[in-house]
Amino acid sequence: MRLSRKSDYALRAIKHLCNLPKGKLGSINSVAAAENIPREFLAKILKDLTRSGLLVSYQGVTGGYRLALPAREITFLTVMEAIDGPIHLNLCTELGDCRCEEYRTCPLKYFWEGQEKHFIKALSREHFGKYKKSKK
Amino acid sequence: MRLSRKSDYALRAIKHLCNLPKGKLGSINSVAAAENIPREFLAKILKDLTRSGLLVSYQGVTGGYRLALPAREITFLTVMEAIDGPIHLNLCTELGDCRCEEYRTCPLKYFWEGQEKHFIKALSREHFGKYKKSKK
Repeated sequence: MRLSRKSDYALRAIKHLCNLPKGKLGSINSVAAAENIPREFLAKILKDLTRSGLLVSYQGVTGGYRLALPAREITFLTVMEAIDGPIHLNLCTELGDCRCEEYRTCPLKYFWEGQEKHFIKALSREHFGKYKKSKK
Repeated sequence: MRLSRKSDYALRAIKHLCNLPKGKLGSINSVAAAENIPREFLAKILKDLTRSGLLVSYQGVTGGYRLALPAREITFLTVMEAIDGPIHLNLCTELGDCRCEEYRTCPLKYFWEGQEKHFIKALSREHFGKYKKSKK
């Protein structure tokens, strides 16, 4: 019951990029070093986030990545769904059927649905505007 | 970010056992059939729950399992920790160190710590007394 390494790295990469000075790009090397993320894995993650419309990538020696949207418009939910797909805390909340004898009225399922709803709400409220450091 | 199949099966097995008539044992076959859990996997899970003191096992042809405690004293948290160990929503809340440049003051970690606290509280409040069907 744990956040995937891939989503954790994606969130930290976005947190890093949202703190770059305006107009500055983050290179794979600089993000990997600052956040201690394996370089090749990070390259794949940044590509996924670009494909999902959360980052813009610039090619070339001086290239790199920047946020495609203002930080306050990028939430933990958007990032995690871009990386791992829809959030489901249990198989039964995804498939709506855990195939036991009581799947239609399963009381355990109600608990998981409630927790999932709470968690998704928290993720959708957590935007990266909160993670911009105040300028010194 | 999902409950393990093993913990899901453990919770459903306990839910099934807490609804047996007083004095009746649940055999591996009957629990597996009612909850649609693969038999060999269930056998291992029931052994783990017995070792953790949540179930009592009786050997022999008429043997089986019963709860070791009243249903209201068994919580989702106890069962899940018996199966998968302590609950941690992210690596940083387990190790206290995600090895990035900011691990001491990482703002993302505070979010995960908060969510984890909420989740553990919910799991510790969810006891199986709630899942006993009223007698017909």
